[in-house]
Amino acid sequence: MTLNVYLSGEIHTDWREQITEGAQGLDIVFTAPVTDHAASDDCGVAILGAEDNKYWHDHKGAMVNAIRTRKGIEEADVVVVRFGEKYRQWNAAFDAGYAAALGKSLIILQQPDHDHALKEVDAAALAVAREPSQVVDILRYVLTGTLPC
Amino acid sequence: MTLNVYLSGEIHTDWREQITEGAQGLDIVFTAPVTDHAASDDCGVAILGAEDNKYWHDHKGAMVNAIRTRKGIEEADVVVVRFGEKYRQWNAAFDAGYAAALGKSLIILQQPDHDHALKEVDAAALAVAREPSQVVDILRYVLTGTLPC
Amino acid sequence: MTLNVYLSGEIHTDWREQITEGAQGLDIVFTAPVTDHAASDDCGVAILGAEDNKYWHDHKGAMVNAIRTRKGIEEADVVVVRFGEKYRQWNAAFDAGYAAALGKSLIILQQPDHDHALKEVDAAALAVAREPSQVVDILRYVLTGTLPC
Amino acid sequence: MTLNVYLSGEIHTDWREQITEGAQGLDIVFTAPVTDHAASDDCGVAILGAEDNKYWHDHKGAMVNAIRTRKGIEEADVVVVRFGEKYRQWNAAFDAGYAAALGKSLIILQQPDHDHALKEVDAAALAVAREPSQVVDILRYVLTGTLPC
Amino acid sequence: MTLNVYLSGEIHTDWREQITEGAQGLDIVFTAPVTDHAASDDCGVAILGAEDNKYWHDHKGAMVNAIRTRKGIEEADVVVVRFGEKYRQWNAAFDAGYAAALGKSLIILQQPDHDHALKEVDAAALAVAREPSQVVDILRYVLTGTLPC
Amino acid sequence: MTLNVYLSGEIHTDWREQITEGAQGLDIVFTAPVTDHAASDDCGVAILGAEDNKYWHDHKGAMVNAIRTRKGIEEADVVVVRFGEKYRQWNAAFDAGYAAALGKSLIILQQPDHDHALKEVDAAALAVAREPSQVVDILRYVLTGTLPC
Amino acid sequence: MTLNVYLSGEIHTDWREQITEGAQGLDIVFTAPVTDHAASDDCGVAILGAEDNKYWHDHKGAMVNAIRTRKGIEEADVVVVRFGEKYRQWNAAFDAGYAAALGKSLIILQQPDHDHALKEVDAAALAVAREPSQVVDILRYVLTGTLPC
Amino acid sequence: MTLNVYLSGEIHTDWREQITEGAQGLDIVFTAPVTDHAASDDCGVAILGAEDNKYWHDHKGAMVNAIRTRKGIEEADVVVVRFGEKYRQWNAAFDAGYAAALGKSLIILQQPDHDHALKEVDAAALAVAREPSQVVDILRYVLTGTLPC
Repeated sequence: MTLNVYLSGEIHTDWREQITEGAQGLDIVFTAPVTDHAASDDCGVAILGAEDNKYWHDHKGAMVNAIRTRKGIEEADVVVVRFGEKYRQWNAAFDAGYAAALGKSLIILQQPDHDHALKEVDAAALAVAREPSQVVDILRYVLTGTLPC
Repeated sequence: MTLNVYLSGEIHTDWREQITEGAQGLDIVFTAPVTDHAASDDCGVAILGAEDNKYWHDHKGAMVNAIRTRKGIEEADVVVVRFGEKYRQWNAAFDAGYAAALGKSLIILQQPDHDHALKEVDAAALAVAREPSQVVDILRYVLTGTLPC
Repeated sequence: MTLNVYLSGEIHTDWREQITEGAQGLDIVFTAPVTDHAASDDCGVAILGAEDNKYWHDHKGAMVNAIRTRKGIEEADVVVVRFGEKYRQWNAAFDAGYAAALGKSLIILQQPDHDHALKEVDAAALAVAREPSQVVDILRYVLTGTLPC
Repeated sequence: MTLNVYLSGEIHTDWREQITEGAQGLDIVFTAPVTDHAASDDCGVAILGAEDNKYWHDHKGAMVNAIRTRKGIEEADVVVVRFGEKYRQWNAAFDAGYAAALGKSLIILQQPDHDHALKEVDAAALAVAREPSQVVDILRYVLTGTLPC
Repeated sequence: MTLNVYLSGEIHTDWREQITEGAQGLDIVFTAPVTDHAASDDCGVAILGAEDNKYWHDHKGAMVNAIRTRKGIEEADVVVVRFGEKYRQWNAAFDAGYAAALGKSLIILQQPDHDHALKEVDAAALAVAREPSQVVDILRYVLTGTLPC
Repeated sequence: MTLNVYLSGEIHTDWREQITEGAQGLDIVFTAPVTDHAASDDCGVAILGAEDNKYWHDHKGAMVNAIRTRKGIEEADVVVVRFGEKYRQWNAAFDAGYAAALGKSLIILQQPDHDHALKEVDAAALAVAREPSQVVDILRYVLTGTLPC
Repeated sequence: MTLNVYLSGEIHTDWREQITEGAQGLDIVFTAPVTDHAASDDCGVAILGAEDNKYWHDHKGAMVNAIRTRKGIEEADVVVVRFGEKYRQWNAAFDAGYAAALGKSLIILQQPDHDHALKEVDAAALAVAREPSQVVDILRYVLTGTLPC
Repeated sequence: MTLNVYLSGEIHTDWREQITEGAQGLDIVFTAPVTDHAASDDCGVAILGAEDNKYWHDHKGAMVNAIRTRKGIEEADVVVVRFGEKYRQWNAAFDAGYAAALGKSLIILQQPDHDHALKEVDAAALAVAREPSQVVDILRYVLTGTLPC
């Protein structure tokens, strides 16, 4: 059994690396959005031409990024969405809703102070974790039946 | 042609009333989440029994509310999602993602200062409006082909 | 908003009547399996001809009953499944799994002594109730936003 | 033709081993839930933190297990569900209903004394077997067209 | 509960009338193909222009008829397919396969001398009846729970 | 049987009126895009604000129009697409492809000089008509089984 | 591009061999039902136990065979259905209907004297061939763009 | 992550070669229709027999070509549709509509003078490019996150 896992959300800490390194040796294919913030913001105009209007600048970029994120989510068995401490992170919640509607297994990674604000998102999830290592433990258990010591 | 329109998101201003009143006479069925904040927070424990742990208190409520919100979104032709000035509003972005994955026509109602933060959400929408009256104008145009004078 | 509610499971007590009576005045269409135990067991052979072998006697009946139960579940917004104190009730759990796979909102009605045995079923539900009156309270809240006093 | 076969249900006897050993040499990928009873019961709290309330203890575990069981069933061509002599086994019947709703080919493995109680489950199946060896014979026939001597 | 029932197959006897008359008073909407044999054969060329080649003459008619038959089958809850004594009736078997793939409840109406030839079709059905009155009895039971005296 | 018919394509002649008038008395609900050319071109900016760039001017309008056209096509049983003598009419062909992918019954209304250019579109259709009256004849036949005299 | 091709229908001539041999070197995976007539008829009782009643004897076999045929059809890109000169071949027409409802590309292989009887089946096909070699030519063209010399 | 990309539309220039060569080294599987114009026009009659009537000559070819194009589009993650300067290119717009209805990521490749005529098509796309090299840049960014220098 190969697990396809999409890692959505916060891009300012190394949580994706913690998970992919912790999961070494497991039969998992990880995918993720482009996490280079500048490239992600500017990909639309850098490739398809500049826009005077910031709205359309953003729009072109968001649509190009959607090619990757939708494929990632649609092919995933498990979608992990991390909410960080800062920023509004509406794209993270959007991805969670998108994944939920497609029936994906959803794991939310967030701190307790966001529990109330994330209650509708958490209610669609199969697990709410606090640490990347817990996500690794879940993935290992799902694939091998082994619990952490 | 009857249009089913689900009004998701911010519950602290009267934008839903502005839209439903503005749309009087049009063949539209509006649905929405429970907008009584206290009832929405406590419905789980009020009906199914108290919880010591605040997390599960919230969880039970969020799951009961999901019965209504999922039916509303799944039966909608158009999902309008309003992002207000305050709070994190992750449930609004979650609903937008859920609706997008189901292929619903999405209208986002938000102010320009959120344009950058909402760019992924907007990229999945067929219209981004600033005022409730614009949503009414869209719905009237969609149903009757009439533009505002 | 009209809610279609399918009442699956235990057929030996009057829980369906309690719910339908408690929900009077709400915009709900209730459906249910045939609850006449003898008719339900014998419908296949009574209509399509006797069978020597008890297995095929049961089989013909179960297939005729499936015409009704599948339509009921497939058209439902909410599927309520009650597990009683007696019998194996595998058809109730089967209906719950069937409804879960179709993405229906699931309410399980059962006593606490079955919590452990039903944990996989409960994990697919949006509410676990102990009394029929709680199911009525949920349905009323979903439709009207009103909590019990 | 590679056949994906999910082996659901009873976890107290070696029926899964009998099938996988009997099917050696056939082009089959077998999957199954975690069959370590203690790990399966405790995986939620072992990974995600303890719960005071036994209900939520069970709930967290059942949801983590669902990540594996849903992937297993959704990717299967054939779902074999075994009902043993003991326990209520509602999760087995739930899996059967889930698989039936997804249109999977269902094989039920059970003893004749359960025929009446399982008639609705059996009516959704393409085969009802009594012995693991019969399941092997079906799988071999499906893949190779060869009947047992 | 309103049942949508599509009556497919043999068009040379009055079995459709027997069923619709027998089912008077039940909440059923019956649909069927055009049963005027000549009109059904010639509808394509009569409306869209003559064809020299008999193959395309038939083709144009079959495609126009498909507008009606596909709508009928796709909106049906129950598809009844009658196989008569004469002709090859491949369109009846085609409709049965089409309905089966869409997950419709299938009732086959046929005489025992065709049992072996129809075994694959019957295996996809929830009931195999010999007389139109049995189909009426099934529909009445499904809707009202009442068995024939 | 009520037929939902969407009339897509050319907006410069009165073919829609010919069909709806010819079909009077038949149980048909007709829908169509907004056929006021100026309103259709400008709806985006008229409601949501002007754009300096003509591309985004058009884009905003096309997205608002999509709310109506997608609902129309998705709810249709039959999609009629007319190709006129002038203009490129790529939106007509787009609608035909969209309808085909959703499995709608497609009727193409076009003149013979376009046969070769439309061969891929015609190959997805159940009828290719030359005159609006033929579309009426098809719809009457589908609903009543009556051929033109 | 790998093409999955299911070869359904007549089992008394070597048309499958002609196609698979003719298609050597092309990137095609062929599947087919069990074509050993005796095994196909008896597989149910040979594996799952004898039946006194011939109807259930046939039924058990048809259901076991359905495990293979449904997987074959559901995974196919192209379903070829051959109608021979003899027998009623309702299972072939059933497979064609099943494949059509799933949106598979259908190729019918039949002689002209069956054209009228097969007109509804042919109307759902993308090609009607007379000889196995024509099926090979189609498959080669689809994969390589090469026409027969 | 492997990207499946279908290249639809104009067949008279070398844009497909420009894209496939530019994308060398990227993990992409490209598919396309048969681009040999003569073979594409005549494939139906060359394989399945001549037709006197040009309409059916074209029809047989278009249906054989549909076997390839539908598989290509249905398996694609990204569908690129190029509109050239000449011809009506309704099949290109048809493919775009077909891909849009299936939820594929759509990239349109066209010159600015077609912007108004293609506005409905562009509104369904995630990117509108002017040059094949921009398509390559998008695909590289989607797969690697790297922007052009």
